[in-house]
Amino acid sequence: MYYIGLDLGGTAIKGGIIDDDGVIIIKDSIRTDKENGADKVLNDMADFALFLTKKAGLKVKDVAGIGIGSPGLVDGGSAKVVFAPNLKWKNVDVRTVIESKTGLPVYNSNDANCAALGEYMFGASKNYKNSIFVTLGTGVGGGIITDGKLFEGVGGAGAEIGHTVIGIDGEQCACGRRGCYETYASATALIRQAKEALQKNHNTLLSEYNEDAIFAKDVFDCADKGDKVANEVVDKYYEYVGIGLVNLVNVFRPEIILIGGGVSARGEKLLKPLREYVAKYSYAGSNAPSVKIDVASLGNDAGIVGAASLAVAAKRNQTE
Amino acid sequence: MYYIGLDLGGTAIKGGIIDDDGVIIIKDSIRTDKENGADKVLNDMADFALFLTKKAGLKVKDVAGIGIGSPGLVDGGSAKVVFAPNLKWKNVDVRTVIESKTGLPVYNSNDANCAALGEYMFGASKNYKNSIFVTLGTGVGGGIITDGKLFEGVGGAGAEIGHTVIGIDGEQCACGRRGCYETYASATALIRQAKEALQKNHNTLLSEYNEDAIFAKDVFDCADKGDKVANEVVDKYYEYVGIGLVNLVNVFRPEIILIGGGVSARGEKLLKPLREYVAKYSYAGSNAPSVKIDVASLGNDAGIVGAASLAVAAKRNQTE
Repeated sequence: MYYIGLDLGGTAIKGGIIDDDGVIIIKDSIRTDKENGADKVLNDMADFALFLTKKAGLKVKDVAGIGIGSPGLVDGGSAKVVFAPNLKWKNVDVRTVIESKTGLPVYNSNDANCAALGEYMFGASKNYKNSIFVTLGTGVGGGIITDGKLFEGVGGAGAEIGHTVIGIDGEQCACGRRGCYETYASATALIRQAKEALQKNHNTLLSEYNEDAIFAKDVFDCADKGDKVANEVVDKYYEYVGIGLVNLVNVFRPEIILIGGGVSARGEKLLKPLREYVAKYSYAGSNAPSVKIDVASLGNDAGIVGAASLAVAAKRNQTE
Repeated sequence: MYYIGLDLGGTAIKGGIIDDDGVIIIKDSIRTDKENGADKVLNDMADFALFLTKKAGLKVKDVAGIGIGSPGLVDGGSAKVVFAPNLKWKNVDVRTVIESKTGLPVYNSNDANCAALGEYMFGASKNYKNSIFVTLGTGVGGGIITDGKLFEGVGGAGAEIGHTVIGIDGEQCACGRRGCYETYASATALIRQAKEALQKNHNTLLSEYNEDAIFAKDVFDCADKGDKVANEVVDKYYEYVGIGLVNLVNVFRPEIILIGGGVSARGEKLLKPLREYVAKYSYAGSNAPSVKIDVASLGNDAGIVGAASLAVAAKRNQTE
């Protein structure tokens, strides 16, 4: 059987078809024509799904369903995008239009939730029925798998792990609170932390960069070259990331936490300090089950495979 | 059918029997003879269960099972107390001895988890399949119900909501980290905050108390009498409690959060500011489902009813 995954973004919709092993047999993308309203986007998505099916040489009956990863707050039960500022969508039902046009069942969840499910079904957390996926990128997002199922909270409004305060009275967060995990552990936060360090001490390789164009990778590169200031920034950043991970461990005690997003490209250099931190500070120490920490494995395909995984999970649930 | 609940504490074991409506038909308590080892305590618990059954005029076949609420880290699956510092227990199997001596199935979970389950089955969160119970007492504990089931994490090592850092570099916590929710939102924390305020400003009713004998209730009493310093302390304390509640909302998005523990005696005076705070700061504001905030209702019986609820839940699962 085959499964369509559509990754709905603010500028583009990436789409693809996977097989039962999670292998992408075809992928493509179209523009998100959001200026012409939600209905236009939904019709485009339905057409895109049918186009992919045809292009892959499949019939609609070969496809079990369409999974959609949407930005913002998504209610998986009703398949509604409840609130997505970057699309300017509120309470948009993505199911009815796409189901009626394609004849295929449609499933919908938040894109970070989809990525977590994709990793659980086909990626680095495969077979770990209790796992958490944390993306460290522009913001901090995530998805939670408990007992082999996506945990979304009532109305899909849970799993906003980037929006848990870890530093009272910390930096202002876009969500309205101060000191959210996202304001400490995102790539954006790392860059801010590097700039703050640079302002205090110019005797650093960081001073060679245009301050408006420092990227997270630059900070890591300076640290790797032995720069003291950059290393202090990076070490402190790892600690911030670790604090949030231990919070998740103490509440969820998963078997594994996967790190995704741009920062995860750092691989073992990131994982080593995080593993040490989590092992050292998790509640009840060695008396409690240890938690694996690894990087996500689906990479650029996470959006498509993750979205399609919604349809795979639904199919498997029916079969069981 | 009837269900035995045993609430295992460091100094006493409270026990009782409830009916299908959660009504206690008998209760009593015995001393925790921990000095003579775990095996002695387990044998005492089995005898106590049989004693309660007899005293209630029941036969063992009228009882469906024994639920036990234990302190510390408990693995519900294996019914083991993995780590309980106040009993000096490590990996104690409570099931084998008590089952063999009573002939009844034995279930075990952390005492705060039991309280959460009890409230869900018979108390203030009845029928809310997604609920969180937060105790504000000497420490901050809690239990999480998702999809109508107790969420314990792998090996029962989750749901330690008091041990999530909300203030980086804050007060030292007994768990080894700094700035845990417990160090801001427990009754102990409130007392510390009051003492700190008193040290800065003696022009307060708080100065009339012996500093070593200020209780949380005293701080609230001073605030109720219009004392400015006490009111500032209490308002800030509510904010700390609120920060942790919003963190829980953003991750779990339950239908309801119940507050238990000593501080919950404050009732509406506590609930009003917490409800306002949670409504104002929860992720996506009014675009996401609102969360009820209330006080727990089982009070002093929470230990017995909660523990017995484990047996009720197991029985109902078998019947379904």
